[in-house]
Amino acid sequence: MAGNKPGYVSIVGAGPGDPELITLKALRRIEAADVLLYDRLVSEELLDYAREDAVRVYCGKAPGRHAMPQERIQALMMEHASQGKHVVRLKGGDPFVFGRGGEEALAMAAAGIPYEVVPGVTSAIGASASTGIPLTHRGLGASVAIVTGSRCHDHDAPVRWDKLADGVDTLVIYMGVSQLGHIREQLLLYGKNRQTPVALIERGTTSGQRVWTGTLDN
Amino acid sequence: MAGNKPGYVSIVGAGPGDPELITLKALRRIEAADVLLYDRLVSEELLDYAREDAVRVYCGKAPGRHAMPQERIQALMMEHASQGKHVVRLKGGDPFVFGRGGEEALAMAAAGIPYEVVPGVTSAIGASASTGIPLTHRGLGASVAIVTGSRCHDHDAPVRWDKLADGVDTLVIYMGVSQLGHIREQLLLYGKNRQTPVALIERGTTSGQRVWTGTLDN
Repeated sequence: MAGNKPGYVSIVGAGPGDPELITLKALRRIEAADVLLYDRLVSEELLDYAREDAVRVYCGKAPGRHAMPQERIQALMMEHASQGKHVVRLKGGDPFVFGRGGEEALAMAAAGIPYEVVPGVTSAIGASASTGIPLTHRGLGASVAIVTGSRCHDHDAPVRWDKLADGVDTLVIYMGVSQLGHIREQLLLYGKNRQTPVALIERGTTSGQRVWTGTLDN
Repeated sequence: MAGNKPGYVSIVGAGPGDPELITLKALRRIEAADVLLYDRLVSEELLDYAREDAVRVYCGKAPGRHAMPQERIQALMMEHASQGKHVVRLKGGDPFVFGRGGEEALAMAAAGIPYEVVPGVTSAIGASASTGIPLTHRGLGASVAIVTGSRCHDHDAPVRWDKLADGVDTLVIYMGVSQLGHIREQLLLYGKNRQTPVALIERGTTSGQRVWTGTLDN
């Protein structure tokens, strides 16, 4: 099975959902891939760009099942690459914004496997465009923060709601729905104005996009 | 000159510099454009995708000259669109992240001109991938902020260095070089650790990319 040419790993961002929002570079990596390891948030349409004989491995969460453990994904990346394959690890959004791409890059570096990272449009930016809500605006917003709202995500690096409440002009919260009440409470506690406009965006940039707008108060 | 079909404006992000980091959607808008209004930060190669008969208007700063005023750019967008043209306003990075795309969108809305916004990979995300420095990392960074370092950029929305010094795990500063000393001073004043790793990135993602790394101390 072992090839003579060295393998190669591309850790690739597939963009925020709309398959047209993938970069040209990412598309070319999909077209060239021997092996595709893809996530739940990646549009099925993008897989059609791959060669017919490319191996496709789904790494996301199947209904009623757990997602593939991160260690298993990294082991698969290394396994295929060490057989001389061009492995494309295709992830929703951008690999380095809550994408665990950093862990995968470190694992490849530690194993001596050549790799690259191809960025993608992250959901905050995709949904900003598709809803028409700018992340910055002259005179209103000169700073934007992106945080994760999932409390269980990362106990070692908790989100500083006390600082963020008035530390940035625009605050984007990923995976925030399940903690909505807690986040609202924290922002109000630390002095965020009740009249601050809020938008909730589901499946941003896709044909199933839904948007609710209001204020922090309601 | 006036056409019968209504004009249309696409406010398009061209990505962070590497011409391959444009989205497929943005590329298709360039290919379809009757008129292209483009900025200094847009790669020349991308203009080659436009039709030969497309009108190309440079809106950036020419050597020894001032940039075209924002009001003049918006007037040109409206002028061409009202003649039934498909106008593509091509901007470096993403239109809604320090891109003044919000102002252009508002101007189109006020004038009753149909428009859309096509997102792009912003420099923070592009340079993160090309330098291998993740913006978030499990256990180390669960929040990232993007601010502008140019003090004269926006007096009405000053950057809150006091909150940001320990409010986010990763801090990205656009256009910060001229204010480097001031920013460093502010971050140290508000308690940022002197050993915090720092990377300075020039022309990220392009063939001319340069990176300096160190700590806040040096």
